[in-house]
Amino acid sequence: MVKSPRAFVISTGTEITQGLYADTNAMHLSRILRDHGFEVVGHAAAPDDAGRIRDAIRGTFGVADLVIVTGGLGPTEDDLNREIVARLWEVPLVRVHRAEEMIRERFRSRGVSMPERNLGQADIPEGAKTLLNFWGTAPGFAMPGTGGRPMLLAMPGVPAEWRAMMDRYFRRVVLPMFPNRPVSRIHTIHLSLVPESTVNGWIRDLFDSMEGVRLGILASRGIIRVRIAASGDTDAVRDRRMEAMRGCLRDRLPTEFVLAEGPESTTPEDVVIETCLERRLTIATAESCTGGGIARRLTNVSGSSGVLLEGFVTYGNGAKTRTLGVDGELLERHGAVSGECAAAMATGARERTGANVALSVTGIAGPGGGSKEKPVGTVWFAIASEEGVQTILRAFPGSRSDVREWSENQALDMLRRYARGLPTVPTG
Amino acid sequence: MVKSPRAFVISTGTEITQGLYADTNAMHLSRILRDHGFEVVGHAAAPDDAGRIRDAIRGTFGVADLVIVTGGLGPTEDDLNREIVARLWEVPLVRVHRAEEMIRERFRSRGVSMPERNLGQADIPEGAKTLLNFWGTAPGFAMPGTGGRPMLLAMPGVPAEWRAMMDRYFRRVVLPMFPNRPVSRIHTIHLSLVPESTVNGWIRDLFDSMEGVRLGILASRGIIRVRIAASGDTDAVRDRRMEAMRGCLRDRLPTEFVLAEGPESTTPEDVVIETCLERRLTIATAESCTGGGIARRLTNVSGSSGVLLEGFVTYGNGAKTRTLGVDGELLERHGAVSGECAAAMATGARERTGANVALSVTGIAGPGGGSKEKPVGTVWFAIASEEGVQTILRAFPGSRSDVREWSENQALDMLRRYARGLPTVPTG
Repeated sequence: MVKSPRAFVISTGTEITQGLYADTNAMHLSRILRDHGFEVVGHAAAPDDAGRIRDAIRGTFGVADLVIVTGGLGPTEDDLNREIVARLWEVPLVRVHRAEEMIRERFRSRGVSMPERNLGQADIPEGAKTLLNFWGTAPGFAMPGTGGRPMLLAMPGVPAEWRAMMDRYFRRVVLPMFPNRPVSRIHTIHLSLVPESTVNGWIRDLFDSMEGVRLGILASRGIIRVRIAASGDTDAVRDRRMEAMRGCLRDRLPTEFVLAEGPESTTPEDVVIETCLERRLTIATAESCTGGGIARRLTNVSGSSGVLLEGFVTYGNGAKTRTLGVDGELLERHGAVSGECAAAMATGARERTGANVALSVTGIAGPGGGSKEKPVGTVWFAIASEEGVQTILRAFPGSRSDVREWSENQALDMLRRYARGLPTVPTG
Repeated sequence: MVKSPRAFVISTGTEITQGLYADTNAMHLSRILRDHGFEVVGHAAAPDDAGRIRDAIRGTFGVADLVIVTGGLGPTEDDLNREIVARLWEVPLVRVHRAEEMIRERFRSRGVSMPERNLGQADIPEGAKTLLNFWGTAPGFAMPGTGGRPMLLAMPGVPAEWRAMMDRYFRRVVLPMFPNRPVSRIHTIHLSLVPESTVNGWIRDLFDSMEGVRLGILASRGIIRVRIAASGDTDAVRDRRMEAMRGCLRDRLPTEFVLAEGPESTTPEDVVIETCLERRLTIATAESCTGGGIARRLTNVSGSSGVLLEGFVTYGNGAKTRTLGVDGELLERHGAVSGECAAAMATGARERTGANVALSVTGIAGPGGGSKEKPVGTVWFAIASEEGVQTILRAFPGSRSDVREWSENQALDMLRRYARGLPTVPTG
């Protein structure tokens, strides 16, 4: 079986290790590498410090077949990567004349005088292939993997520059060095509102059960993603393995919890809007503790204007009464966080808008407002349709934003279940 | 001068190395470490693979004094960190009874039956201090730095859980082990809706102008943060430097753009709610292209229930007419994305709710819906108060979510300016 070449991504720059930015270069490069059949075996970030950068690069020797390093190619004292790589590969730096010309030309064409030190950017470790930079000043380079060292690709840290370089050079310069890549396929099954440990219990014995197939579980506030990565010596083998594992998972994962299959980035709101468009269903929302978060997510989907007729953010009791017609006496007797209030909100929103289905949320997101009977995390939901009104009580853990996100996911799950003709809450 | 203890941040999880997420845990932890006088000498991310995680942790030996590892503490086969640390420190795992009880109780209180394997989360390397988890199931632990190994803090990867753990345990368990830290002070000035290059022009010559003081600028869709980091041999020197730089910046940065000074995490919505509470002002929102995002952000602030009377998500024309009383003829003549429509939405929302001020947004977030006259990114805003109605047109760059975030920030800036008695848009 063809093994994936192993790749490592290193970001250099004190702004990363100081936490000014998240390392999104590593994320995007990892996706590109994975899509081309590499296995990313690690990320590292090092400050602009020769010792730390050298250690990070040396740490990949014997571990990775390809290292991509971004940053550290500028003209300042801080930019050390050319020299560090030259020393690690035990070669001198050599001036690349075509690169030097391009740097001079860049300054000339802008009518700016060039500080002499900028030419240092045209120095490249001997033996490396220069990657001319048509999108910025500093060229990159590709160092061959020799003497136990991996192949190393050095590029500027500016996303627009390394992206353009990857587009131009990756297929031409890097991929030919790794002719045998098992181009793996990824498939994701999204589940909704089921505990991670329950999903794990359903499929535990499938982990490591099939050669060339890896499973992973990712959970985030009610949304569970089961990821299948399949590879094989031939495309046919790989696809057969993928299909076999998908079949196994289909047997194990109850369909009512399955939100979607396919792309990694599918969201519950995508599924709700798509299903409602198919079935020509319209929605209204009435939100208290989520404060508009459900409407915001639904309207983030293209095409949602045909589905979401209207959203109400009725945070205070005045708004609940004024706009949704929730009875003042009801609010006094049961409180705003009650099944009665949730039901009245959903009914009011449905009547006001004429939507097929209205969904309401009212709860205590915290940190204040909790009591012994209704602690922080207590959230009531109601769904009103021509079939009547159904209410559900949930207790969510975590911070204010956690409770709000759990609540959004629960609400979207109820809408999904309604649109698909499933019971609004799990059976049994 | 006291030297900073060296820290290293490791994130474990195949979702990071595969590029599913950016490693924001490393970013946030680095900020916390730096604010407490640590120097972050590197980040690493490893997939759920024992060899890779072990290498990443071992790579910090001799390089760091403190290692923070997130992830890998859940109940599944993928969660290997307890065992890896125990092996590297050459100690057995021991069951922590209090942690076991908490896990059992967590399931009991939710009325969910507990899979037996969940108890494995209560196993901790011998000699480590258990960090009980009151916000999730898996406890963390703090392993002392012995035999050339750094101190190691292991926490769950879920941001809400490690954040709560850092709040509770970092000062108590970790900091006493590092008594000599040159504590630098950080101060952030937040600006709103002014170009980064303009801010840069105002303060460019202050960069590197003062010993022991570092400046940084961070921009994100209309919000600019200017960060001052001051340090010194003594607290008095450090504080004097900080005050001197704050004074310089105060002279340079026009107050009307200054959102707030102080903590890194201050948001525009925090400022709007705080100012409105002080001045006893109430708000209503009427959102089209932001789809509830403004209401969501306002209601994310504790105390917002006294300010936001009601929010309307009127995405379609029907809702604009039905709930906000926007004239059908007006919509036909000018279209929903027009100053006229924005004005009518704001007026309608204010009349309906009796709020002091109503803010409306209507625009084209894309990717579809643009035209030559009204390209994607065209957004109209209106603000209605007893002083009348004012409309503003903006053109924002980027993707659908970029346009929505810019629009939210613009709307919140108009509310902030109104609440502070400033002109709704910059003068001159």
